[in-house]
Amino acid sequence: MQIIETNNYQIEFGPLAESGLNDLLKEYYSERIKLILVDENTHENCLFYLLESVSELHGAEIIQLPSGEENKTLEVSANVWEAFSEYLISRGDILINLGGGVISDIGGFIASCYKRGIDFVNIPTTLLAMVDASVGGKTGVNLGPYKNQVGSFAFPKGIYMDTVYLDTLPEIEIYNGYAEMLKHGLIADKELFDSILNAANSGELPDDEMIIESIKIKQQIVEEDPYEQGARKKLNFGHTIGHAIEGHFLHKMKISHGHAVALGMAMEAFLSFKEELLSKDDFEYVANSLLAIYELPVFSDDDIHEMIELLNNDKKNESGKIMCSLLDSLGSCAYNIEISEQKFLDTFMHFKNLNLSLN
Amino acid sequence: MQIIETNNYQIEFGPLAESGLNDLLKEYYSERIKLILVDENTHENCLFYLLESVSELHGAEIIQLPSGEENKTLEVSANVWEAFSEYLISRGDILINLGGGVISDIGGFIASCYKRGIDFVNIPTTLLAMVDASVGGKTGVNLGPYKNQVGSFAFPKGIYMDTVYLDTLPEIEIYNGYAEMLKHGLIADKELFDSILNAANSGELPDDEMIIESIKIKQQIVEEDPYEQGARKKLNFGHTIGHAIEGHFLHKMKISHGHAVALGMAMEAFLSFKEELLSKDDFEYVANSLLAIYELPVFSDDDIHEMIELLNNDKKNESGKIMCSLLDSLGSCAYNIEISEQKFLDTFMHFKNLNLSLN
Repeated sequence: MQIIETNNYQIEFGPLAESGLNDLLKEYYSERIKLILVDENTHENCLFYLLESVSELHGAEIIQLPSGEENKTLEVSANVWEAFSEYLISRGDILINLGGGVISDIGGFIASCYKRGIDFVNIPTTLLAMVDASVGGKTGVNLGPYKNQVGSFAFPKGIYMDTVYLDTLPEIEIYNGYAEMLKHGLIADKELFDSILNAANSGELPDDEMIIESIKIKQQIVEEDPYEQGARKKLNFGHTIGHAIEGHFLHKMKISHGHAVALGMAMEAFLSFKEELLSKDDFEYVANSLLAIYELPVFSDDDIHEMIELLNNDKKNESGKIMCSLLDSLGSCAYNIEISEQKFLDTFMHFKNLNLSLN
Repeated sequence: MQIIETNNYQIEFGPLAESGLNDLLKEYYSERIKLILVDENTHENCLFYLLESVSELHGAEIIQLPSGEENKTLEVSANVWEAFSEYLISRGDILINLGGGVISDIGGFIASCYKRGIDFVNIPTTLLAMVDASVGGKTGVNLGPYKNQVGSFAFPKGIYMDTVYLDTLPEIEIYNGYAEMLKHGLIADKELFDSILNAANSGELPDDEMIIESIKIKQQIVEEDPYEQGARKKLNFGHTIGHAIEGHFLHKMKISHGHAVALGMAMEAFLSFKEELLSKDDFEYVANSLLAIYELPVFSDDDIHEMIELLNNDKKNESGKIMCSLLDSLGSCAYNIEISEQKFLDTFMHFKNLNLSLN
């Protein structure tokens, strides 16, 4: 069992049966109601193993949500809050979020607002959720095309990661996770970026150490600045454009979060170069590496127009100005950089033309 | 201008034009969007005076909600979040909650969850909101009959109280406020209770000092225990039964919050006596004083059955047990007292019969 210490809780990495989860439940929640939040995928593929590994969860109530980012909504949250009320869930009870980023995002939000907050733990079942969503205390739901527009900062009582869940993940999910791992390398550790890039190119699962290093980068940044007043903004590299791509395509062709962020990183590396923070060589290395793995879609002029609209309502904007976190070298990230609408337009056009020239 | 200092912000009591609100807005929000949340009543009766008193609010966006506890819902919150998105509200902007308890409850909730939290201030326009809802950081919306079932702890940047707003309040609203003031007396200061009772019986507005003393009692308890782990539970005296009454009658005859809490205090004083915490004389003094001002409605057996159902889902319950805060003398309150369903039933029956015997 590998333990990543944080200020307020533990992140444990290893088999669930050997983790501290059973003891936590026994010590603090033995007479409480335990609820497990799943979607149809984790209900089918992940729940049995959890129950087999953690005896204190026998008899837990199971709440199943429809899977997918398009169901990370207020309406679904309201249904769960109503179910909680029917189950007579009270403040001392605990919610176990078993799933990918959608489950930990919406589950954390549901827990943090029900009766002004009940406890929860995260058991991420995807690579993306392990290296990103389950860690850091950001919870939320989407509001139309706006990603995580409504949410809270709420920290779990513990995070338990068991890579057995990664063995049956579809390939797209593995690449989803790689995107955030590559980001952690790009903003903090060039060598890690290179080795994650190698692993991603091989198409195989990353080894444990690589995952743990990636989590540590995120965790350290979050601990330094939990409420995103400053340094935590580095973690938003690739996400200003990435969220616009993801939000815009949510109800169309559906570009996954990792895919959208990878494209966002390629484009924000372009912005980093245009802002004279990053050399042309470094930009090209980043963009070419990412686009070799993550396909660049064809953007229509309408797509670009609508993504610019979304950028104008990005959560990170200040006084109506669109703000970016940009690379100032490979392994280092600057933040609070104002970027004009025109520069985003130039960026989208650059990649639109790049795509045309490639095809 | 009277200032009540707290750990993180100021409560100011006096004319808005002389308050620190204008300076706060000038210093931290001059380039930000200012939003004012009103309902149709405060739009008509309170907004002009605010704009006249605080020049920094000229040009502020006005968002109007339908008034009333029955509109303190997730659906209304969702509409406001959508409006915020349309206005391109970003994290550094600020919401001004201008209204009674419904506005500060839902406005605080809306602000605390939009993009994971924007700043807000409260300008309470009712006596109840001044002495209770606007202070203490509890925000929330109702879920069906469950009061504040979904919400957060979120503290405003400042609270600005101007008693000019009380001059035109309907009588029912004055009594609404008196109920919580009487509670503050009952749980912490018997002499204050007696003088508030005198004032309430006179039918006139309480004087400023009485209001300020009441706020200080609440504020000190909140500061000691902001997240209601212990001592803050004293403030729930009268509210276990009070919320059940209010929730049950929400869509029927509509008993106001203060009225419901006053009835709840009379009944929980009965429980305090039955639990041998309070003498019979003291119970009768409390109950008779309250019922002389706040009319006891006729409860049907169905009403009682449904209120017991609501009690079983009270936010304060622990492991399915209904918990009460009860008086252990006049001016002192105990908490974490488990009360069986049967005892609540006995209490409701006692007051049902009392009502029959009175009529």
